[in-house]
Amino acid sequence: MDPDAVAKAFVEHYYSTFDANRAGLANLYQEGSMLTFEGQKIQGSQNIVAKLTSLPFQQCKHNITTVDCQPSGSGGMLVFVSGTLQLVGEQHALKFSQMFHLMPTPQGSFYVLNDIFRLNYA
Amino acid sequence: MDPDAVAKAFVEHYYSTFDANRAGLANLYQEGSMLTFEGQKIQGSQNIVAKLTSLPFQQCKHNITTVDCQPSGSGGMLVFVSGTLQLVGEQHALKFSQMFHLMPTPQGSFYVLNDIFRLNYA
Repeated sequence: MDPDAVAKAFVEHYYSTFDANRAGLANLYQEGSMLTFEGQKIQGSQNIVAKLTSLPFQQCKHNITTVDCQPSGSGGMLVFVSGTLQLVGEQHALKFSQMFHLMPTPQGSFYVLNDIFRLNYA
Repeated sequence: MDPDAVAKAFVEHYYSTFDANRAGLANLYQEGSMLTFEGQKIQGSQNIVAKLTSLPFQQCKHNITTVDCQPSGSGGMLVFVSGTLQLVGEQHALKFSQMFHLMPTPQGSFYVLNDIFRLNYA
């Protein structure tokens, strides 16, 4: 298993799901999962997806600039992303950084234990 | 122990040491520590400090904009930082994002297991 390939595939899956159907992200999180979104702390798959689906924009498109990954111990993986977020109807894209801590599931897949998102204001 | 207070203290210590005496960061890393610096992967305290001390600028000053933290399991902590890096002699500060995965030491302190750094070009 190539960690960089896994990280890239996760990132593509995550943002294409976010842009097409945010509620579909629910199965990437578990009860112990944590999201810090612009400083707001949210825990648990249901609360996290409630937050993401209630963001004050409908359509958006993420464009990825960089993806870095490292093994984090215990079979986990850290994925660090930078990119831009284009909201429909807005002229300028927003720059963002986001990190994910992926942990293995018994089924051989990964779930998101930690997720921290920040806009990078120009 | 308040994780947010620990994260803030770590961040202040890390960047004040970086700006005053980069070689002094060596004792924050161990042999298994990993740094990904602008996509370049480096492992081990000695190699990491060699990289940081060989960066093509002498004096610099980090200014921190945001610090987020989450527990990562096994007593570890994730710290996510955004800020700016001012190089002496340069007019404009560079924006950066950086994440640290801190793990506990037997002495009750923390070391950096994972470190990922990216400049956020405007």
